[in-house]
Amino acid sequence: MNDLVLTGDRPTGPLHLGHYFGSLANRVALQDRYPMYVLIADYQVITDRDLPGEIQRNITGLLLDYLAIGLDPAKVTIFQHSAVPELNQLLLPFLSLVSVAELQRNPTVKDEIAHSSQQAVSGLMFTYPVHQAADILFCKGTLVPVGKDQLPHVEVTRLVARRFNERYGEVFPLPEAMMGAQPSLKGLDGGKMSKSRGNAIALSATEDETAALIRKARTDSERLITFEEERRPEVANLLTLAGLCLGRPPQELAAEIGDGGAVALKKLVTEAVNEFLRPIRERRAEHTESDVRQLLAEGNRRARERAIVTLDEVRAAMGF
Amino acid sequence: MNDLVLTGDRPTGPLHLGHYFGSLANRVALQDRYPMYVLIADYQVITDRDLPGEIQRNITGLLLDYLAIGLDPAKVTIFQHSAVPELNQLLLPFLSLVSVAELQRNPTVKDEIAHSSQQAVSGLMFTYPVHQAADILFCKGTLVPVGKDQLPHVEVTRLVARRFNERYGEVFPLPEAMMGAQPSLKGLDGGKMSKSRGNAIALSATEDETAALIRKARTDSERLITFEEERRPEVANLLTLAGLCLGRPPQELAAEIGDGGAVALKKLVTEAVNEFLRPIRERRAEHTESDVRQLLAEGNRRARERAIVTLDEVRAAMGF
Repeated sequence: MNDLVLTGDRPTGPLHLGHYFGSLANRVALQDRYPMYVLIADYQVITDRDLPGEIQRNITGLLLDYLAIGLDPAKVTIFQHSAVPELNQLLLPFLSLVSVAELQRNPTVKDEIAHSSQQAVSGLMFTYPVHQAADILFCKGTLVPVGKDQLPHVEVTRLVARRFNERYGEVFPLPEAMMGAQPSLKGLDGGKMSKSRGNAIALSATEDETAALIRKARTDSERLITFEEERRPEVANLLTLAGLCLGRPPQELAAEIGDGGAVALKKLVTEAVNEFLRPIRERRAEHTESDVRQLLAEGNRRARERAIVTLDEVRAAMGF
Repeated sequence: MNDLVLTGDRPTGPLHLGHYFGSLANRVALQDRYPMYVLIADYQVITDRDLPGEIQRNITGLLLDYLAIGLDPAKVTIFQHSAVPELNQLLLPFLSLVSVAELQRNPTVKDEIAHSSQQAVSGLMFTYPVHQAADILFCKGTLVPVGKDQLPHVEVTRLVARRFNERYGEVFPLPEAMMGAQPSLKGLDGGKMSKSRGNAIALSATEDETAALIRKARTDSERLITFEEERRPEVANLLTLAGLCLGRPPQELAAEIGDGGAVALKKLVTEAVNEFLRPIRERRAEHTESDVRQLLAEGNRRARERAIVTLDEVRAAMGF
């Protein structure tokens, strides 16, 4: 069986540099080595939010982000959860293979129950790892790039695949989690990078927006710039960001800035980020919203074709 | 909004006289008053059984039973769960509207957890009331004939419909449960009527099979036949069965048999049942398996058309 990568995002807002260096850059590299499906998990945005809100706009934005960073729709199938009923139907047989006790043990679900209350955990959140199994297995994905949080989800997928194969005959590969070496990039205020905290540089930010965000970044009052992650986390974080954009070690950049202080540091970071984002912005400008909608329709069509084949195999194996 | 009836069965084996007098007769009457969808819940047979087993054969048998009792495919849409991905997709938004705590409170699920163990309750069983909401709401069913056990499921459906409408705008009617006056027909051994106990007369039983089953029925040694449900439950049950088949009060039949004893009682019951099943057997003989497969394909097509319309409305309301 040939390898195939399954990855994706929830359409909750613009992607930012944290996403880029954390996972998107890896996708761009992987698309040349493996066939790849990229899922826009639009149903999952109603897992823990009350209203799907500006979903349509977010989906268009996500696609523009993908194209801007260089994902190539000729190589990669980008599709939406809600457009592939045959993928979602896999939930039914898969739910029969997992016990309530096993769902309760899942750390993400446990966390959610601890942080809110069982009252507040929806059936959709509770069964989320099984949906993810359907996402991965509908296209017989074998490689799933993940962060540490998501490792247990891939375990549920392997469990579902193994039990299905044992009970009904060999249909699914057992997918492997791919853990990348992710840089620990923090937000510009030193906290966790997140769009909602306003401490993240979106891939779609203009030069001026980028400069303004970095201008407000937290630093310290020492004039001599050094790379000391423990003692000077905010400065170190800015140096890491510039280093990632320039492909250079942060220590080297610190030495160059010397005693230029926060002003020189921010100038360097701003130039590095804007230089880095230049080709991304250019590629974004090449696409219109109607392009993007057409690309998505084509991706949905391809994903659906794939899902229909898998669902037919599943139904045949189960004797339907 | 015009009324529409949603009803159905799990394809677990041949239908018997208990099903007929308990619910099927009512369906035959309802088909002339309302449009009706009849669901063959093939995915639900994997809820609490390990293997779907002879599903295909059971589905064909179920359809022959439906045609034999006089359900008219020109009036009624008969379809399979597994053939309508768009119905199953409704699970995703609906799961987001119900909390884990609410699912745990459902009496059927509670029962199941009490009787087996949480270990043994699958995710499919746990979320079963939400699937049933999808079954009822995909066709905007407003009337759901149920036994007492299923009342709480209809409540979950109403909850899902109400919350969906509140959150996303008016899409679904709130369905009503229709509780019929069900005769309490027991099996021929006096226990709960069930195919697996061998105490039920299948609608597909031949004359000889019927006679043999009634010959083995439990009675008592009193020669004078009387209708006393408390003191002589087995005799009363046979009289009830004959009465239902003949459309006559059981007391009257008892008086006619007088002191003929069990032999005369069983002769009367056998004749009554075989006479009753005669037109059902004749209608069954008019259909071939290939007829039936074609009818099901047509029902599946119609149900799917309906489900696509509803799913489109749901996606639009949710802003997808």
